[in-house]
Amino acid sequence: MVLVATRNPLNIGAVARAMSNFGFTRLGIVNPYDPAFREARSAVGASAILASAEEFRTVADAVADCTLVVGTTAVRHRQIQHALRRTEDGAKLIRKRLKSSGVALLFGSEKFGLSNDDLSHCHWLIRIPTHEKNISMNLGQAAAVCLYELIREGKAAGESHKMSFANAGETDRITKMLFDALRLSGFLDMRRVSDSELRIRRLVRRLNLPARDAVIWLGMLRQIVWKLRRAEPPESR
Amino acid sequence: MVLVATRNPLNIGAVARAMSNFGFTRLGIVNPYDPAFREARSAVGASAILASAEEFRTVADAVADCTLVVGTTAVRHRQIQHALRRTEDGAKLIRKRLKSSGVALLFGSEKFGLSNDDLSHCHWLIRIPTHEKNISMNLGQAAAVCLYELIREGKAAGESHKMSFANAGETDRITKMLFDALRLSGFLDMRRVSDSELRIRRLVRRLNLPARDAVIWLGMLRQIVWKLRRAEPPESR
Repeated sequence: MVLVATRNPLNIGAVARAMSNFGFTRLGIVNPYDPAFREARSAVGASAILASAEEFRTVADAVADCTLVVGTTAVRHRQIQHALRRTEDGAKLIRKRLKSSGVALLFGSEKFGLSNDDLSHCHWLIRIPTHEKNISMNLGQAAAVCLYELIREGKAAGESHKMSFANAGETDRITKMLFDALRLSGFLDMRRVSDSELRIRRLVRRLNLPARDAVIWLGMLRQIVWKLRRAEPPESR
Repeated sequence: MVLVATRNPLNIGAVARAMSNFGFTRLGIVNPYDPAFREARSAVGASAILASAEEFRTVADAVADCTLVVGTTAVRHRQIQHALRRTEDGAKLIRKRLKSSGVALLFGSEKFGLSNDDLSHCHWLIRIPTHEKNISMNLGQAAAVCLYELIREGKAAGESHKMSFANAGETDRITKMLFDALRLSGFLDMRRVSDSELRIRRLVRRLNLPARDAVIWLGMLRQIVWKLRRAEPPESR
């Protein structure tokens, strides 16, 4: 990650924080507006990255050991001379290259972005698909989005934790218990429809209960049914 | 987008800016630490969003007209009671639901994230796949990443079969009615746990009720509660 002519040290801190969030470590700073960037606050967990950030006089120096240099842009007035890729397409190519060598991702100043001179060091550019009404992103937020896109497909997708659902037997026990509760409460007498049992069966199936919840619902209904039974006049028990 | 107990007005501004960057407009603020959030600077292009941001006293009020409430978490110490999805998997589901109704995306305070009470209003949670060494993201950056993920796939193919889901207000009425039924039946006395109300709130949200079923469930529970009330000895009515 290379920041060129960044004005606000807080933004450098924010970029460092995003790097740390997504597991990146090398930060290059070219001509910062305020050399006090290492003291940037609000960079939770990023102090190591800030401390080891390298300062360069030119973009050429900063990207010297990289085989691919990618610029970022919001494409405002400027005529773009480079291939421009959406973040997700660009990220794919960057990931690929990162397996064998270094890649530099360049961000320009908050006010002007990358200059034509800066851009001339880039192989191509990426653009975050912002809304046309406000294309200009905050530097720290743009960096977070780009870095997120870089790691997005990295880890195995098995992390979302899987839910096991109630099986048909459990679902059926719940249905029967609910039916009992409805009968005892008088609900079924009020709405006489020929297929009420089927309706209730479908209703319960639409719940798609997770297995652990099925146990709880069954327990709750059982207690309600027990209480309703106790309230019945003896002859109808 | 709903921000709960946000401490730093600058972060509210940053979230508003990311919303504007990605074409989102409705911002809800629950109990901000500093009510001066509307003056948040550094919110380039986001003044309209900040000006029209709604302030709420409770999470329940803020999400009342949404059919899906998604929390965000970095999963630190807390035991997670919800299904947890990676951003990209969650975003898919959110996009789908957004075609037919409102979705709330909840962010907690910078310091503590969402409380267990806040989380109990959520159907499920998403987590940005940050690096284990520094999982805690800046609020504005985390919001930018989530919103980016939401628009990332742009114009996906239209959907065939639309279901309309119960909104949070309806879900809340069902929750309260179920709670009444459980109290009257003695269920709550048998299983004394400090957070039974939160547990039941989560349980009902996991049902993901279709709107038409919500009406039926509410009617069934109302009848059961009415019957249980009648069975109570008069002094305790």
